[in-house]
Amino acid sequence: MTLDVVILAAGQGSRMRSKLPKVLHKIAGKSMLMHVLEVAAQIGADNTHIVIGHGADIVKENIANHTVKWSLQAEQKGTGHAVAQALPAIENDAQVIILYGDVPLISAETLSTLLDDKAANALSLLTVKLADPNGYGRIIRDSEDQVVAIVEQKDASAQQLAVNEVNTGIMATSASNLKRWLPLLKSNNAQGEYYLTDIVAMAVADNIPIDVCHASHPMEVQGANNRLQLQQLERFYQQQAAIALMASGATLADATRIDIRGVLQTGEDVYIDVNCVFEGEVSLGDGVRIGPNCHIINSKVSRHCEVKSNSVIEGAVLAESCTIGPFARLRPGTVLARGVKIGNFVETKKANIGIDSKVSHLSYIGDAEIGRDVNIGAGTITCNYDGVNKFKTQIADGVFIGSNTALVAPVAVGKGATVGAGSTITGNIAEGELAVARAKQRNISSWKRPVKKPQD
Amino acid sequence: MTLDVVILAAGQGSRMRSKLPKVLHKIAGKSMLMHVLEVAAQIGADNTHIVIGHGADIVKENIANHTVKWSLQAEQKGTGHAVAQALPAIENDAQVIILYGDVPLISAETLSTLLDDKAANALSLLTVKLADPNGYGRIIRDSEDQVVAIVEQKDASAQQLAVNEVNTGIMATSASNLKRWLPLLKSNNAQGEYYLTDIVAMAVADNIPIDVCHASHPMEVQGANNRLQLQQLERFYQQQAAIALMASGATLADATRIDIRGVLQTGEDVYIDVNCVFEGEVSLGDGVRIGPNCHIINSKVSRHCEVKSNSVIEGAVLAESCTIGPFARLRPGTVLARGVKIGNFVETKKANIGIDSKVSHLSYIGDAEIGRDVNIGAGTITCNYDGVNKFKTQIADGVFIGSNTALVAPVAVGKGATVGAGSTITGNIAEGELAVARAKQRNISSWKRPVKKPQD
Amino acid sequence: MTLDVVILAAGQGSRMRSKLPKVLHKIAGKSMLMHVLEVAAQIGADNTHIVIGHGADIVKENIANHTVKWSLQAEQKGTGHAVAQALPAIENDAQVIILYGDVPLISAETLSTLLDDKAANALSLLTVKLADPNGYGRIIRDSEDQVVAIVEQKDASAQQLAVNEVNTGIMATSASNLKRWLPLLKSNNAQGEYYLTDIVAMAVADNIPIDVCHASHPMEVQGANNRLQLQQLERFYQQQAAIALMASGATLADATRIDIRGVLQTGEDVYIDVNCVFEGEVSLGDGVRIGPNCHIINSKVSRHCEVKSNSVIEGAVLAESCTIGPFARLRPGTVLARGVKIGNFVETKKANIGIDSKVSHLSYIGDAEIGRDVNIGAGTITCNYDGVNKFKTQIADGVFIGSNTALVAPVAVGKGATVGAGSTITGNIAEGELAVARAKQRNISSWKRPVKKPQD
Repeated sequence: MTLDVVILAAGQGSRMRSKLPKVLHKIAGKSMLMHVLEVAAQIGADNTHIVIGHGADIVKENIANHTVKWSLQAEQKGTGHAVAQALPAIENDAQVIILYGDVPLISAETLSTLLDDKAANALSLLTVKLADPNGYGRIIRDSEDQVVAIVEQKDASAQQLAVNEVNTGIMATSASNLKRWLPLLKSNNAQGEYYLTDIVAMAVADNIPIDVCHASHPMEVQGANNRLQLQQLERFYQQQAAIALMASGATLADATRIDIRGVLQTGEDVYIDVNCVFEGEVSLGDGVRIGPNCHIINSKVSRHCEVKSNSVIEGAVLAESCTIGPFARLRPGTVLARGVKIGNFVETKKANIGIDSKVSHLSYIGDAEIGRDVNIGAGTITCNYDGVNKFKTQIADGVFIGSNTALVAPVAVGKGATVGAGSTITGNIAEGELAVARAKQRNISSWKRPVKKPQD
Repeated sequence: MTLDVVILAAGQGSRMRSKLPKVLHKIAGKSMLMHVLEVAAQIGADNTHIVIGHGADIVKENIANHTVKWSLQAEQKGTGHAVAQALPAIENDAQVIILYGDVPLISAETLSTLLDDKAANALSLLTVKLADPNGYGRIIRDSEDQVVAIVEQKDASAQQLAVNEVNTGIMATSASNLKRWLPLLKSNNAQGEYYLTDIVAMAVADNIPIDVCHASHPMEVQGANNRLQLQQLERFYQQQAAIALMASGATLADATRIDIRGVLQTGEDVYIDVNCVFEGEVSLGDGVRIGPNCHIINSKVSRHCEVKSNSVIEGAVLAESCTIGPFARLRPGTVLARGVKIGNFVETKKANIGIDSKVSHLSYIGDAEIGRDVNIGAGTITCNYDGVNKFKTQIADGVFIGSNTALVAPVAVGKGATVGAGSTITGNIAEGELAVARAKQRNISSWKRPVKKPQD
Repeated sequence: MTLDVVILAAGQGSRMRSKLPKVLHKIAGKSMLMHVLEVAAQIGADNTHIVIGHGADIVKENIANHTVKWSLQAEQKGTGHAVAQALPAIENDAQVIILYGDVPLISAETLSTLLDDKAANALSLLTVKLADPNGYGRIIRDSEDQVVAIVEQKDASAQQLAVNEVNTGIMATSASNLKRWLPLLKSNNAQGEYYLTDIVAMAVADNIPIDVCHASHPMEVQGANNRLQLQQLERFYQQQAAIALMASGATLADATRIDIRGVLQTGEDVYIDVNCVFEGEVSLGDGVRIGPNCHIINSKVSRHCEVKSNSVIEGAVLAESCTIGPFARLRPGTVLARGVKIGNFVETKKANIGIDSKVSHLSYIGDAEIGRDVNIGAGTITCNYDGVNKFKTQIADGVFIGSNTALVAPVAVGKGATVGAGSTITGNIAEGELAVARAKQRNISSWKRPVKKPQD
């Protein structure tokens, strides 16, 4: 017996007012469909079927790296019709669970409970109780509390509308049940659609047991039909992420002002100030402190580093005890050894910087190998680009680069060398040498200041 | 028949603890009084009267560009007395609506309903039901649910205090009614003031029909008496603006962390990250992405531009597909053609930059005309100022400016020319030329590093 | 009679998942224990006793500058046992109040009320009513509403669990009562601990009057047992601070997006935009405007200064009417006279800058004395460091420093002197002189642009 997950992802989502198919809109930097795919993997799906329709090509393109089976629902004739498109590709003895590409925050825990609670050959429904059930299909139970039907809002009686337990649309049953029931669906309802929910009545008629499992939180079964709902799901996701982060031992200055779009791993006693954004894979070692308004992407920040306010770090690896910022911008390929200091208005890119070296102010260090105990003065530029090619700058241990220096790559500066301030260095410098490339200063005493010219 | 709007704006607002008259405190970057003036225009006011008192001169100065009629309320003797000051300037056959300069979020929709629902010669009241009516004038109705009086908090019986429908102060009636009623107002109440609300009892006595219209949300009739209330109105305004933005098809990372002070127009599939501030007139084209912590003022950002985190843009026009930031600062007069890249720690001002040109790092480009496919190296400065005059830098298509270059304006660099890194360019460069202004590098091998000197 | 405060601070706080003892975790930049110590001082404590256990040494080290008496609770045997450790150091005639190092936001007002309401020799309890009392010790009262016991959650009957008035643990009584009662405590309860709360039953048995005082808000008696609670206390603290700031006459763009970690003093009509962080002692004069995303530490900003978005200011003193930022970084020792302008991507450190002088772009000004009416061009660097020593740059009144200039300290520029753009200045310049240190520009017309090289 296999577990087959069917994900409905054919809807247009016109209320999104977007060119993008609805399921490709993102929560925490990842498409809603991808969230659902990841849950499918977590519950051990043997096969994952995605039913596509609107924007089918762009959806397929976005999921290109995942092994899924595609089913095309050419016309949007309802959820029952959508599931039917996937059925031919499902073995008769499979267990099937139906998920939705626009219900991104469903948890693996809830789905596992839904699957575990199933009696043999049962139909399992995931339901949720809502303070305001308006708009949702109501769960109708008999006098013995057994589910007998789901009634859509548009077809519901006043009494049925008062029920606050609603259908989430997520359900599980055997492929053989689905193959028997789906062909029997009728579209004689207000919407003229084939409702998947009508199989509940068929299960009742067939004496198939109906198990019910409750969602742990309404937001895990909340769909995103417009950008307001998308944003509400985003904030719920972020709130949960912040709570998990605090539980794991990080101090947050404000749990409502942190955004984690990917995986953020934190060591012991990490402190994250207000308004930081983390993207991709980021790890922060023990005792790391992140100042306000930082943006950190796909980077490793080792223990006891301090990142000061308003810094942007992407694709960088920082060894322990580095000090970064404020206003530092580390770009991909930045590798900092222990104790490095990168100060304000400094950009680094493809730069290896050795132990305890300092680039404190207003510099651009790109395509560079820098040794340990190097001091790079303010306003230093590695001229790594001639308009078509990029070249390397190599600076050995203990070098002192005076301020406002241009290092025209390819160039190598030997161990312990010194460059005088204001120099443009075009040739290599040997160990211990002082290099100066500077015009003689002339003081002219007869100088008349310019005067204000008439405006055009 | 004309529609005359009377705006009461004479109060001091001592609880604001401010030098500024209360009505000049701002919501979303615009004074409360200006918000009310704009609503008056939206409902088609023929004449707008502002009753001023405290800080009359500074209020007039702030509204100087608007056509309004001023009435001075020299002494603060209550709302009825305030309206009376405007009456002489109102025609007898006018319809009059009374608004408040410190109730800034009243909507045109609500006021239009208030005016539309009016029976001939009626008195129309705008009321609101509050969970906590404490402090407000209660709407007193008879057994047939007709309004018979408004009773102020200080004058109300215990039974009246229990009423949760309260007076908003906003009302409409004919000028002739007001001219008959206002002279009859008495000040024999707890406050010793002439209450406008007392005309309700006069209407009852005169058998004038009293129509009631409800505010759509308590915040639209909320006044700002202190800075806490001002901030609450600000956040309500911003919340409504964020919801409208999402409904129009923009994705917001966090609807509680966006500030729009003016008009923000967005195309399809615009994405705005957390904590951005927009001021004045800003438009963002289709597919524009704005990173976290950006501040954008009076600018046009065309489709498919990306503005990365921590950028500040003011008075700039960006054609499509530009990439800006992080840490870019575009100042007024910046005009970027298609595909321009402005990188980190770059400032531009009065700069026309051509298609696909790049200013990637640590530069100041001011008073400049730059062609297409130009590469401006890191650390380039246009020296546009001699202390009294500003001069232009002209750079033609395809130029390559080496890093750490100073361009002393006025100066022109011809098509396809190259400037060597570290140069100070004071003379024009012809098409295709290489210009270098650089001292010869000397390497000195006998150099002794400085030693630590004793501190003073 | 003395007032002795006993602060319990021996717990490990394992749910914090931290190396740091629980009471050293911070709220608003200050350890929880320090908050409690400050309250003790505010209520006029004659002696303050801190009972330490876990991490005793590091706690003592953190409080080193305060006069307190330390008691060691070597084993954690409950709150009664903890207080008993401090008793030997307390005089018999003292009044004793018991506080908790992890309940940081208790107010001096509430404690003063607790102490004032006390009958002679009474036991005074601070209680609070909670919507959800789960987990807390319930206040058990008799038919005459007199307190007869406190029952811990684990020992409570179903009926007792329904009580929503709970023990805060904060109480006050005479030292003689404590010295009589504490030795009688038993540990025969679910936890096997000596509960301080059991003295309530002893007081009842002894006919000692029990006075009850209510906390003004549940958050002032909320303990922090994990980082979620720590963060909730942080936000409550910040919310209260924001409300106080608005009441004092500052306008906040968003009261939920400001962080004050220390003391922020504001003059009249101060405006603070979203997402600012203040640390240490900061004062903002009348009419000061702070833009979004600023971070200001231990600085004085005088009246009518404007700090634009994304600026970081630490240890600086600004006279009136300065304009700072965006993207400015003022470091300690920056002293700005009236009307100074510091622009984008400018760093200052130990810099005295005179009236109306300007450093508008991309500069580093360190260890400098700058006169009035000086214009520092873009890209100017004071080369203040030779690798081991720091030197001063002196610039007299009215100097014009051209862009991209390096000033190699020690160096002095005389009154009204001018430095040509792109110069490296190594020698002094006399009054009125023009100094240029610039290589001659050569234009080479035979120049061939580099071609793309094959990649390795």
